[in-house]
Amino acid sequence: MPVFIGIDLGGTELRAAALDERAAILRHAQMPTAAEGGPAAVLDQMAQLVAEVSSGLTPAAIGIGSPGPLDIAAGTVLHAPMLRGWRDVPLARLVAERCGLPARLENDANAAALAEWRLGAGRGLMHMVYVTVSTGIGGGIITDGRLLHGHRSLAGEIGHMMVTDQAVPCACGGRGCWEALASGRALARRAQEAGMRAEGPVTARLVAERAGLGDTMALRLMAEEARYLGLGFTNLLHLYAPQMIVMGGGLSACLPMMEGEITRTVTAHVMPAYRGIPIRVAALGPRAGVIGAALLASQP
Amino acid sequence: MPVFIGIDLGGTELRAAALDERAAILRHAQMPTAAEGGPAAVLDQMAQLVAEVSSGLTPAAIGIGSPGPLDIAAGTVLHAPMLRGWRDVPLARLVAERCGLPARLENDANAAALAEWRLGAGRGLMHMVYVTVSTGIGGGIITDGRLLHGHRSLAGEIGHMMVTDQAVPCACGGRGCWEALASGRALARRAQEAGMRAEGPVTARLVAERAGLGDTMALRLMAEEARYLGLGFTNLLHLYAPQMIVMGGGLSACLPMMEGEITRTVTAHVMPAYRGIPIRVAALGPRAGVIGAALLASQP
Repeated sequence: MPVFIGIDLGGTELRAAALDERAAILRHAQMPTAAEGGPAAVLDQMAQLVAEVSSGLTPAAIGIGSPGPLDIAAGTVLHAPMLRGWRDVPLARLVAERCGLPARLENDANAAALAEWRLGAGRGLMHMVYVTVSTGIGGGIITDGRLLHGHRSLAGEIGHMMVTDQAVPCACGGRGCWEALASGRALARRAQEAGMRAEGPVTARLVAERAGLGDTMALRLMAEEARYLGLGFTNLLHLYAPQMIVMGGGLSACLPMMEGEITRTVTAHVMPAYRGIPIRVAALGPRAGVIGAALLASQP
Repeated sequence: MPVFIGIDLGGTELRAAALDERAAILRHAQMPTAAEGGPAAVLDQMAQLVAEVSSGLTPAAIGIGSPGPLDIAAGTVLHAPMLRGWRDVPLARLVAERCGLPARLENDANAAALAEWRLGAGRGLMHMVYVTVSTGIGGGIITDGRLLHGHRSLAGEIGHMMVTDQAVPCACGGRGCWEALASGRALARRAQEAGMRAEGPVTARLVAERAGLGDTMALRLMAEEARYLGLGFTNLLHLYAPQMIVMGGGLSACLPMMEGEITRTVTAHVMPAYRGIPIRVAALGPRAGVIGAALLASQP
């Protein structure tokens, strides 16, 4: 029975998994990404993890999910801002040579979207938008029963749609991006600006925890976060017409708390024909990316 | 040889055309839409135009392009704001019964996008975004070699992505939509607010004409229009990753005048991987919609 290997290259965690042809996870392994060691160090880690998850199995192919921008056709990571020294790395070729298996590269959010569609919250739908909200905002689009790629597989860069003329700077170098307004980093920044104090750093997680305990400032900040998310979701409905929005990433744990305000915001702004589309928490958690990468490897 | 009929239902012009299977236009006819007469009057007009363009031919099917929102699967126009009394009109069925031919309904901007892709400015591409900028802003998306539909064919409602928190009201009832900022109606409104005077009404066309003659205020307004278009185009690049943006509608005639400022705006805001994508004037002019509708009729 064919086995497919997925690798999920994250800025902090590196994961690998072996899936059988029915997409059951046979093995999973992970380690902190050697982000400071450059591509060579990470390639060593990948080879080690692939050996670990495929020991005793005979894998057919490897799929790699990576943060972008990528040149998908060439299998090259053009630039990975959170990994030191990653510029024009022909990752698919390097992994293929190192592991002796065919390897293909895909945007990490696309991989996670694929997994949530095939095996997670969006099973059985024709149209679904996957949004991951953590430090940044990424996404993957399933539409008309297919993963939307676009030219060079660059479609669905939803975190960088401009939604405001507020001059909020974004990690991409631009201003007014949805990510700059609604990501976990943006929430943490607003909490700091609002004067929230803590012994350690003021993070999005801290704001969410305090909101859960009824802290007034934190509740106000989470409501604001929900409104910003709702504005972006409204755009996604008009742009991609999904049957469901699936939210992953760290902030998706707060969806129950934010759901009311998000729904109010969407309903207030979206055209009637687009109302009533459910927003659901992703089902596969942090393994969505590695599962999706293996699914990609299994595609013809 | 099979012949296919297209109908393009516009707020001011109603068109029909007969195309052969190689998509050559055999006949074309048009008349002002009886927008005040309700669906019955327009249906009479459609039957008349279809008879006119198909006389002596044996058409196989009819495609109808209509402004939305539509229920594509049911073939129903849910609401057409610029046509009096159009609510829940089962247009595909009514046309099919009246003309004795199978008929299918499609969003008018999707139809025009299909035409520009198959026969116009975007021939041969895999990924293309068609943007029509006139009174409002609409669009149709070709991606991965297919027309993007989404749930109920509602994808690509690009005029109503929010791009600003300026409280500019939009025809959709919302605020801050790209259409509210960058449509011909928005340009005309800004010209009026800036104190532009004319014997007749101050329209987008008037502003463009005066800019062509070197009028300082008009040039400033056109530059501002170009910037707003450029902001929306930037989002379209990030969201759909086209190889080309094709601009149709009345304002596309001004693209040569605005091109420099649009390109500067896009380049300033778009991520490097998305740079250098050409923006081209649509090639088929006002007949794109009716040609696309006939192409739809010819699809299995």
